[in-house]
Amino acid sequence: MPGNSFGQLFRISTWGESHGGGVGVVIDGCPPKIALSENDIQPDLDRRRPGQSSIVTPRKEADHCSILSGVFRGRTLGTPILIWVPNTDARPEAYREMKTMFRPSHADFTYQAKFGIRNWEGGGRSSARETIGRVAAAAVAKKVFHHLAPEIEVIAWVRQVQRISIEFDPLKVSLAQVERTPIRCPDPKTAARMIRLIEKARASGDSLGGVIECVARGTPAGLGEPVFDRFEADLAKAMLSLPATKGFEVGSGFAGTRLFGSEHNDPFALRQGHIRTASNRSGGIQGGITNGEPILFRVAFKPTATIAKPQKTVTVSGRAATLQARGRHDPCVLPRAVPIVEAMTWLVLIDHWLRLRAQCGTPMRRRHAKRS
Amino acid sequence: MPGNSFGQLFRISTWGESHGGGVGVVIDGCPPKIALSENDIQPDLDRRRPGQSSIVTPRKEADHCSILSGVFRGRTLGTPILIWVPNTDARPEAYREMKTMFRPSHADFTYQAKFGIRNWEGGGRSSARETIGRVAAAAVAKKVFHHLAPEIEVIAWVRQVQRISIEFDPLKVSLAQVERTPIRCPDPKTAARMIRLIEKARASGDSLGGVIECVARGTPAGLGEPVFDRFEADLAKAMLSLPATKGFEVGSGFAGTRLFGSEHNDPFALRQGHIRTASNRSGGIQGGITNGEPILFRVAFKPTATIAKPQKTVTVSGRAATLQARGRHDPCVLPRAVPIVEAMTWLVLIDHWLRLRAQCGTPMRRRHAKRS
Amino acid sequence: MPGNSFGQLFRISTWGESHGGGVGVVIDGCPPKIALSENDIQPDLDRRRPGQSSIVTPRKEADHCSILSGVFRGRTLGTPILIWVPNTDARPEAYREMKTMFRPSHADFTYQAKFGIRNWEGGGRSSARETIGRVAAAAVAKKVFHHLAPEIEVIAWVRQVQRISIEFDPLKVSLAQVERTPIRCPDPKTAARMIRLIEKARASGDSLGGVIECVARGTPAGLGEPVFDRFEADLAKAMLSLPATKGFEVGSGFAGTRLFGSEHNDPFALRQGHIRTASNRSGGIQGGITNGEPILFRVAFKPTATIAKPQKTVTVSGRAATLQARGRHDPCVLPRAVPIVEAMTWLVLIDHWLRLRAQCGTPMRRRHAKRS
Amino acid sequence: MPGNSFGQLFRISTWGESHGGGVGVVIDGCPPKIALSENDIQPDLDRRRPGQSSIVTPRKEADHCSILSGVFRGRTLGTPILIWVPNTDARPEAYREMKTMFRPSHADFTYQAKFGIRNWEGGGRSSARETIGRVAAAAVAKKVFHHLAPEIEVIAWVRQVQRISIEFDPLKVSLAQVERTPIRCPDPKTAARMIRLIEKARASGDSLGGVIECVARGTPAGLGEPVFDRFEADLAKAMLSLPATKGFEVGSGFAGTRLFGSEHNDPFALRQGHIRTASNRSGGIQGGITNGEPILFRVAFKPTATIAKPQKTVTVSGRAATLQARGRHDPCVLPRAVPIVEAMTWLVLIDHWLRLRAQCGTPMRRRHAKRS
Repeated sequence: MPGNSFGQLFRISTWGESHGGGVGVVIDGCPPKIALSENDIQPDLDRRRPGQSSIVTPRKEADHCSILSGVFRGRTLGTPILIWVPNTDARPEAYREMKTMFRPSHADFTYQAKFGIRNWEGGGRSSARETIGRVAAAAVAKKVFHHLAPEIEVIAWVRQVQRISIEFDPLKVSLAQVERTPIRCPDPKTAARMIRLIEKARASGDSLGGVIECVARGTPAGLGEPVFDRFEADLAKAMLSLPATKGFEVGSGFAGTRLFGSEHNDPFALRQGHIRTASNRSGGIQGGITNGEPILFRVAFKPTATIAKPQKTVTVSGRAATLQARGRHDPCVLPRAVPIVEAMTWLVLIDHWLRLRAQCGTPMRRRHAKRS
Repeated sequence: MPGNSFGQLFRISTWGESHGGGVGVVIDGCPPKIALSENDIQPDLDRRRPGQSSIVTPRKEADHCSILSGVFRGRTLGTPILIWVPNTDARPEAYREMKTMFRPSHADFTYQAKFGIRNWEGGGRSSARETIGRVAAAAVAKKVFHHLAPEIEVIAWVRQVQRISIEFDPLKVSLAQVERTPIRCPDPKTAARMIRLIEKARASGDSLGGVIECVARGTPAGLGEPVFDRFEADLAKAMLSLPATKGFEVGSGFAGTRLFGSEHNDPFALRQGHIRTASNRSGGIQGGITNGEPILFRVAFKPTATIAKPQKTVTVSGRAATLQARGRHDPCVLPRAVPIVEAMTWLVLIDHWLRLRAQCGTPMRRRHAKRS
Repeated sequence: MPGNSFGQLFRISTWGESHGGGVGVVIDGCPPKIALSENDIQPDLDRRRPGQSSIVTPRKEADHCSILSGVFRGRTLGTPILIWVPNTDARPEAYREMKTMFRPSHADFTYQAKFGIRNWEGGGRSSARETIGRVAAAAVAKKVFHHLAPEIEVIAWVRQVQRISIEFDPLKVSLAQVERTPIRCPDPKTAARMIRLIEKARASGDSLGGVIECVARGTPAGLGEPVFDRFEADLAKAMLSLPATKGFEVGSGFAGTRLFGSEHNDPFALRQGHIRTASNRSGGIQGGITNGEPILFRVAFKPTATIAKPQKTVTVSGRAATLQARGRHDPCVLPRAVPIVEAMTWLVLIDHWLRLRAQCGTPMRRRHAKRS
Repeated sequence: MPGNSFGQLFRISTWGESHGGGVGVVIDGCPPKIALSENDIQPDLDRRRPGQSSIVTPRKEADHCSILSGVFRGRTLGTPILIWVPNTDARPEAYREMKTMFRPSHADFTYQAKFGIRNWEGGGRSSARETIGRVAAAAVAKKVFHHLAPEIEVIAWVRQVQRISIEFDPLKVSLAQVERTPIRCPDPKTAARMIRLIEKARASGDSLGGVIECVARGTPAGLGEPVFDRFEADLAKAMLSLPATKGFEVGSGFAGTRLFGSEHNDPFALRQGHIRTASNRSGGIQGGITNGEPILFRVAFKPTATIAKPQKTVTVSGRAATLQARGRHDPCVLPRAVPIVEAMTWLVLIDHWLRLRAQCGTPMRRRHAKRS
């Protein structure tokens, strides 16, 4: 299986380059009779779209989606759903330097090394525009869950930008809080500091990285497979498949390595008639399988590779050169990465939900969906 | 595809529980005519085997492997290779409590929730014995690379145990250094401190976690796919599919999020006629594809869940209980996890090497394999 | 994996319904740097298009294709290729009866039973328009072979229409001969008889079936896998995945069951320094793997299900009814199925060629490609 | 995915050669809590075993199976089930000639051409012993259906041996009738004639082919996918993946090509409150999806390739030679192929049943399971 598909049963295949006929996705395996139209997808595309605030790239892609197949009179047919978003603000001339030079820490060199050819206009397939297909597919997954398990919710937020970070209670965070600021950090004061930091970095032609945290609440126990397709393994793959990611941790993560086992283990306890854990250092997953507690994880994003400052590099023929990049780039990918991290989480959830239904029958709904 | 297989073209399927007829692996897609016998596999099994030193579990599994198919007169046939390791030191009575209680932060509860049944003798499929099949398969992968690209080497080592950690030059670390101490930390002084810490934890009935670092050197450029099957995504999945793992980071990882883009990018430069990077914060991977530099990553392991100290939990029927675990467990999984991390790395490498050969033709050998 | 994809390494995923935004295909895993444009694809689409002669459906679909991704300045990038053909001659009103009645021996009832919903305008996904994506993908496969193994050729022809049949030497048949008549039977006299038979059936509101024969010449030895993915097994699946097919046979086929083993076996013999078979009852495949001889097989197509004659059926609510179908249907699918059978053969060939390269290295070219 | 696995969700991977450590299968994805022991599997292995009657090979393989994993205290765990059958009656010396000569129409030459190596003792992987794993896996599938849909039954029988053939009502055939004679033809008189023919062929050192017919009754509507994974496509692949098969046809098959559409279509009609078809030329499948009627198909088997008569061939170095095969071969594979055809049918059924449950929810049971 080539590498542009994700999922076993709710299988998405993304396609498209940043410059060319557009980008999109084919979804195969979607359950039938789910209400679906472009209006269900567009809001999520708008959350990841360029130009939505002052701290992201000013490119002006409308990112309007069209469903070309798989939906009949407003309902899914159970057949492949093709979603297409044309490219509208392509400016290949802004990438002229990329034709002859390799951008440091970008995909230019490795694509050339692998394929012997690359679309140097806008990064081609390595552009973050590819994630449009993922966000569109996840919007469909959400509609499926609206029917099958509406208590499930997924919320991601910016936890850290460079050295500014915040801990936020994953049981309490809400989408409204996250969306209140363009940086998508639920704490308004920290958000303001992060925004200032990003604006400063942009002004100096530089870029910043950080960490996104994500929680899935209301998820049933039993998702994930014992060995290779552990739920956290598929989450890790999903997250590391995103551009600019450098790390993933679930539950206690790297910090948990500093505890003793007796401190780290989550004791079981009975709560309102259900077996629950008293703490959640497991991040909602034990032995590769969800235990019904909130699934909690973090993803590290490096500072954007394309910066305005001059950089040392080589030309495609191997001569030393200085790259002065143009184009319109995000000084920090995190705010636009928030909906993408959520999207990949939805895609892992729907796939494992269907896999669980196949092998063991319909998953039990969680009655204690939202702790308050 | 159910969850007990890994790899697209060099596809392994592990099977077996810790108590029962044994554990093993089927390898499908192995290139033909590779010299192979049990003697090629046993040394790697011995590195992960219990009872090899004073700081690991004293269980006495000989872990002798047998090849039941796929090899004819000492050479692979290109057909499935079945490797079997019988269970010899099973002591189901040591797990009697697990029949009625859920061990905190173990797989007991989630297996029961998913399948409605579990093998409570020794943890069944969630036991680390499952990794025997992975190590055996990786030993076969190594033999394949011995023919196809002998310059490739993979070395992992213990970088951190609880609060004791060491930075070691990934360009210089050698297998001999790693194997010099039972903790598999290449720095003898740090190793001694780690060992003392583990012995102390064991004495108090507790357990420890830590971090393993791993480098792959001599690898060609071009491994990995642009989107979902990025090399680091498949590495992340491979590592998070290991028992007790909580995090993964590649190259600069989480720490890299604190740098500016201008500090983080790896400038390209010409060295001995080849395009190389002057630094390696990318960890040998850019845009999801290897760039020919050393591949470098770290994996977080939580403290072992099964400890001798009494713990609060519930019984299978939901009554509060105190678990006093018996059985013979590792106070710290890291030394035995080192060969397993290496094994998963070999498996990701061989699979992507064959995928690259399929799509783009035989990969170029790296002529600058070992920096010295 | 849901059911709209085909192939392991040259993986195609078709999408689209007969009425809606169009139909198409995503190709993942195509080798890079292959010259490709719409002009390479259109001729094959024109061969399968409606309205090309008096004996096929008069629908007026131009079937113009657009490549939306995966090609850069005339060469493949190694990334997914999206090919789209809009629907232009949709006439949903012609299918009004299908909304309330199930057409006998069509997919109406089973789609409804499976999905609880169906696109009753034009048959939706069960329409032969779906095969457009396959033909387009196969045109790309042909271009890849033009680089990798240009000696390979695939030719299909109509061997039988109802009771009229012809045996034609598979070593001598040429594309020009096949294309000489609209029925695509290489023998002009038989072709004329077949055409008259079809015109008569159409006039009476009835339909006809028949048999297509296909040969692949110049193919290397070694394609196919020993067990489940035998070359003939994948061919059989490919052919039975086509609408209206009811049977498949390779080499001697069903007739070969009437011979003794001593009559049926193909003796090996040396010819011009190569090991060849003196006869070819094996159809070019032995033990599931190609032996370098021409691959030869036949496919049975039932008479078109949609006919103009009144038929007994039931309504969706189960009441007895008489269906008087409208719409513009092929009285015999065979002439338009010829390029589709060829297409599926190319797709099986390219996939196994890449699989062979992955596991065993680049396949040897056949030096005795064309017997003359 | 290499070629030794079958099925998407109930995934089997067979392994083993006819001479070596044995043969077997790993089943991944089996539903949990199904009662299972070796006693459920052995009867089916006994049906395909050599030496069971005078008209099959006299080899004396006991074919005793062991379950090494995936079952705990008599119930499936939902984890991989490893079933192993050791080889006991290996006589490599009987195959000495195969080391230096290629048997006509056997897999010797093609394995050598593909892999550059082959296990010439007993045919290695191309031996029919490989099918043991399939039969064992199907026995497990039957147990799963015993829980999920016990009304489903699959019965195959010998319809034709060389020129002797019989039509038998697929609605009335029973397992008892089939098992009454060693040839597994449900008509006793025809069975006797077939047996005499086989004994005569064996006496003359020759071999025979024929046709097996198979019916699946009680199957729900909705199995199969619209496009590539049509139910009949997966059946065709399953059957053509069996050694010695040359053809497959479903429902009306090749003979149906001689009818007009108006004769061939199956009219819908209401029967006991259900929508049924008045005839079954569709063979229980329409548009790739089962319609709830009996699934009916036929498979052509060529005469056994290995015969006692001297045959012309070449040596591995290309010199002309005469092969006088020894070894103990079936003069006609059909009686032993009957349980194997059934096995592959069960495997296609269980896989599509689980796929249907994943996408659309639990399939409806057929209330009109057995027509009488």
